[in-house]
Amino acid sequence: MMEPPEGWELRGRPPALFRRFEFGSYRETRLFLDGLADLSEETGMHPQNISFGTTYANITLEAPDGGEPGQEEYALAARINALSGPAAS
Amino acid sequence: MMEPPEGWELRGRPPALFRRFEFGSYRETRLFLDGLADLSEETGMHPQNISFGTTYANITLEAPDGGEPGQEEYALAARINALSGPAAS
Repeated sequence: MMEPPEGWELRGRPPALFRRFEFGSYRETRLFLDGLADLSEETGMHPQNISFGTTYANITLEAPDGGEPGQEEYALAARINALSGPAAS
Repeated sequence: MMEPPEGWELRGRPPALFRRFEFGSYRETRLFLDGLADLSEETGMHPQNISFGTTYANITLEAPDGGEPGQEEYALAARINALSGPAAS
């Protein structure tokens, strides 16, 4: 099994990629979510769920076929990490 | 106790206003979320949590003081209903 990108873990059954991002302000959270929406439009891949409040976003990525996350989901997770910038923890 | 706006229910302890919105497409979901972000900036009120996927959004509104939702939260809920348009269920 591949190693999840930094900060992500495999959760659930079948496993989904999950990561929590925390931000210093609503503005940062909003910028992250806007970037994520752009990334979804570009790739045609949408997280199965995004749950957010003013200063956090929890993201779950599933494989579209209901199986385990594969290369495409790992690549998307890595690109989401790049969106979050150094401010995210 | 006030009657929650159409489609909303009181949930949890202390109770929070909750409603699930369903949409016909990711585009509709995205338009709704963008409108909600604009409404948050205008009012300075942010839902405690928004959890969404491609065709739904679940929204939880809490009172900022940890008490029961009051007139301000009810008014925000009604404005969120207006955003969703006739397509939402």
